[in-house]
Amino acid sequence: MSVITLKKPVRIISSASVVGRHEHAGPLGGLFDFWDADDAFGMDTWEHAEAEMQRMALTFALNKYGADDRAIDAVFAGDLMNQCTSSSYGLLPFDIPYFGLYGACSTAVEGILLASLLIDGGHFSRIASVVSSHNCTAERQYRTPIEYGSLRAQTSQWTVTGAGAVILADGGDGAKVEKLLPGRTFDLGINDPADMGAAMAPAAADTLSRYFRETGTLPRDVGKIVTGDLGFRGYEMMVELMHREGYDVTNNYTDCGMLIYNREKADVHSGGSGCGCSAVVFASHFLRELNEGRLDSMLLIGTGALMSPLTVAQGDSIPAVAHLAKVVR
Amino acid sequence: MSVITLKKPVRIISSASVVGRHEHAGPLGGLFDFWDADDAFGMDTWEHAEAEMQRMALTFALNKYGADDRAIDAVFAGDLMNQCTSSSYGLLPFDIPYFGLYGACSTAVEGILLASLLIDGGHFSRIASVVSSHNCTAERQYRTPIEYGSLRAQTSQWTVTGAGAVILADGGDGAKVEKLLPGRTFDLGINDPADMGAAMAPAAADTLSRYFRETGTLPRDVGKIVTGDLGFRGYEMMVELMHREGYDVTNNYTDCGMLIYNREKADVHSGGSGCGCSAVVFASHFLRELNEGRLDSMLLIGTGALMSPLTVAQGDSIPAVAHLAKVVR
Repeated sequence: MSVITLKKPVRIISSASVVGRHEHAGPLGGLFDFWDADDAFGMDTWEHAEAEMQRMALTFALNKYGADDRAIDAVFAGDLMNQCTSSSYGLLPFDIPYFGLYGACSTAVEGILLASLLIDGGHFSRIASVVSSHNCTAERQYRTPIEYGSLRAQTSQWTVTGAGAVILADGGDGAKVEKLLPGRTFDLGINDPADMGAAMAPAAADTLSRYFRETGTLPRDVGKIVTGDLGFRGYEMMVELMHREGYDVTNNYTDCGMLIYNREKADVHSGGSGCGCSAVVFASHFLRELNEGRLDSMLLIGTGALMSPLTVAQGDSIPAVAHLAKVVR
Repeated sequence: MSVITLKKPVRIISSASVVGRHEHAGPLGGLFDFWDADDAFGMDTWEHAEAEMQRMALTFALNKYGADDRAIDAVFAGDLMNQCTSSSYGLLPFDIPYFGLYGACSTAVEGILLASLLIDGGHFSRIASVVSSHNCTAERQYRTPIEYGSLRAQTSQWTVTGAGAVILADGGDGAKVEKLLPGRTFDLGINDPADMGAAMAPAAADTLSRYFRETGTLPRDVGKIVTGDLGFRGYEMMVELMHREGYDVTNNYTDCGMLIYNREKADVHSGGSGCGCSAVVFASHFLRELNEGRLDSMLLIGTGALMSPLTVAQGDSIPAVAHLAKVVR
């Protein structure tokens, strides 16, 4: 599959982000639509809290667009929970055809890709894409309950408590999705679940270098190159892997996981991660940069590590995938 | 969202199914492409076995089509494992852009819907959809390891050990996907995880009755109406719910979960279930009926229960979704 250029203008007409207190304390804190001081969002369990974040994010996005759920033809949704229950329960109140996705932390961009393709295809006018992650649900499921106080490796990342929603449409105002490149699954044999950046960087470099080769463009031809959640460690690997492919990305490449926390103050080691990381940074920061004219174009690359605690326990290495969307002003 | 009529002919040009020994012992046993006598498929763990089933199913489908993975523009894949690892690991050998789905047991039809829409949209020519379930991985994850010998409720179903693959294309020979109706998530307050048929039947009835209303057709206007895995118990509920909507489906409605096992001989209680259930029954039996002229048209309705063991433990009821595809000769 080659780079896809959409036939019609698909615009991101609304977006919203909902985060926890650590994310609010970070450098982008003032840009999110809502933050909750105790990360519980008024709920009795962390899992209910994460579902509530999805409900809130889509509600904010609908409110900003000035429409209710009847205006939306479909929703793509996903999260990191087993059986993606933050999505299925969180979006239950909405009367919208539902497509569940699982792309780990690439899900935000997977949703944008599929929504763009369906709108471009002509049967759908407006599609929402909603994803979430929550630090406490992820820690409980993937590692150990936070109350255990386990030590974290320096390569490990901090799962973002955040839900992001975007609404894409075949008309209206907002940044335009112009080109897409779906990713292939990739496995370079990394098997350390505390080093996701290293597992995902090869997939991101594969997709990004294919994009440059196929379009005959260079990193300098786009305003920003932004990966989802490689973090500081994965960023360095990505720069090195792209260098080996013949591309210098050091001038305009960054990663959402490096932007969301204040690294000096927050104990986040290699940066942020999780489905919510790229979703809230894109929905709050980068879409604003595009819509307010400070950025002309960007390549958003969603990165996902497709393992589970069970596959890690069985000694399998970690496959990853990276989907790319070019979004322009 | 209304019923979608595809603009161009999207055909199912190849299909394959791989099953375990219980499925081979059932009434459709002779139709599957491969069965494994000990359900392990040569692997060291059940999870590796399920991944191998996906690899085998797609390989069979590619071989029948007479092509390798370079002929395929994208693959939609999903399963029931946490983080959908049967798909990500099983399809890793294929160099195909990868879209992970999670629709529980509706995933087979969710994949057919999205593949059809993307092909209809014009950017993709050939897309594969692959799903799986395995009795032993599902029992270990959702209930208790089978070695514990727990008693099963009479309403419970038997997770199918099976992987199905279909390849859809914008040309060629094979049954045609003609109309689609994506489902909404639905929750009627059922909270018994041993009674999935009851949880999913309302979603199936919602989608099917909307289809008949919007198209102005009746059950008799289509050859067969086939749900994915409601089982015997869900079948009865479905008939009753459709009756309340004003439609008599008793003449030509059946369920893949009722067809795959010999109910008298196999101890499967309410029938088969799992992502693999509708996938292998459709790929082996119904596609053959269509392609060999014994069936003119069918409505395939994928049914998925979108809960997890954790949401059940937290007392939540079980949301469900049902996607519909009309497939014609």
